[in-house]
Amino acid sequence: MNVVNIASKFNLIQDHWHPRIVGQLNDSYIKLAKLKGEFIWHKHEVEDELFLVIKGRLRMMLRDQELSITEGEFVIIPHGVEHKPVADEEVHVVLLEPKSTVNTGDVPSERTINPEWI
Amino acid sequence: MNVVNIASKFNLIQDHWHPRIVGQLNDSYIKLAKLKGEFIWHKHEVEDELFLVIKGRLRMMLRDQELSITEGEFVIIPHGVEHKPVADEEVHVVLLEPKSTVNTGDVPSERTINPEWI
Repeated sequence: MNVVNIASKFNLIQDHWHPRIVGQLNDSYIKLAKLKGEFIWHKHEVEDELFLVIKGRLRMMLRDQELSITEGEFVIIPHGVEHKPVADEEVHVVLLEPKSTVNTGDVPSERTINPEWI
Repeated sequence: MNVVNIASKFNLIQDHWHPRIVGQLNDSYIKLAKLKGEFIWHKHEVEDELFLVIKGRLRMMLRDQELSITEGEFVIIPHGVEHKPVADEEVHVVLLEPKSTVNTGDVPSERTINPEWI
């Protein structure tokens, strides 16, 4: 059992849109990711997903609205809801999602990754 | 779907050791709690529990060691592990745990609470 310092873990991440696992509990992973630019539209058929912003401002595009999530704020995207994260400037996020979650959801592409631990 | 500002939610909490629910996903709750003083020794038989410190320093007593968790750090207490949170000064924590989790685990007492949403 160990204490995880979020800022120290972020220092190990150099790339964008590549979540790294930093913890696991109850069949879910805690992941960290740096985001910059636009991701793709996708949804997760069965997994709800939490985005907690640690640094910067995340724009979460939904089909019928846009949400702005800044430092110290989180949003939960329910399963089945199409979303596209956009980071105009670099954003640091903590993700919480079931271990089965694929980053590109129902849209496999060259941006689909298999997250590893850091 | 709404954006939750953690600091704003903490402003609504006046008491200690009384977690409030601020989000739900995948059969888990996100809760916020202010801690001050000592809690009781307990364990959760089936639920892993995450403590993310937002403010202050949390001492997590385990039977064989003591962990110190400060702002921007988290620890995951696996199910079955006895623990006693101690806050020498007020601590603000985000908790992540299955909906079935009881705050006093296997030790029902006058400190057992039924968390509500804020």
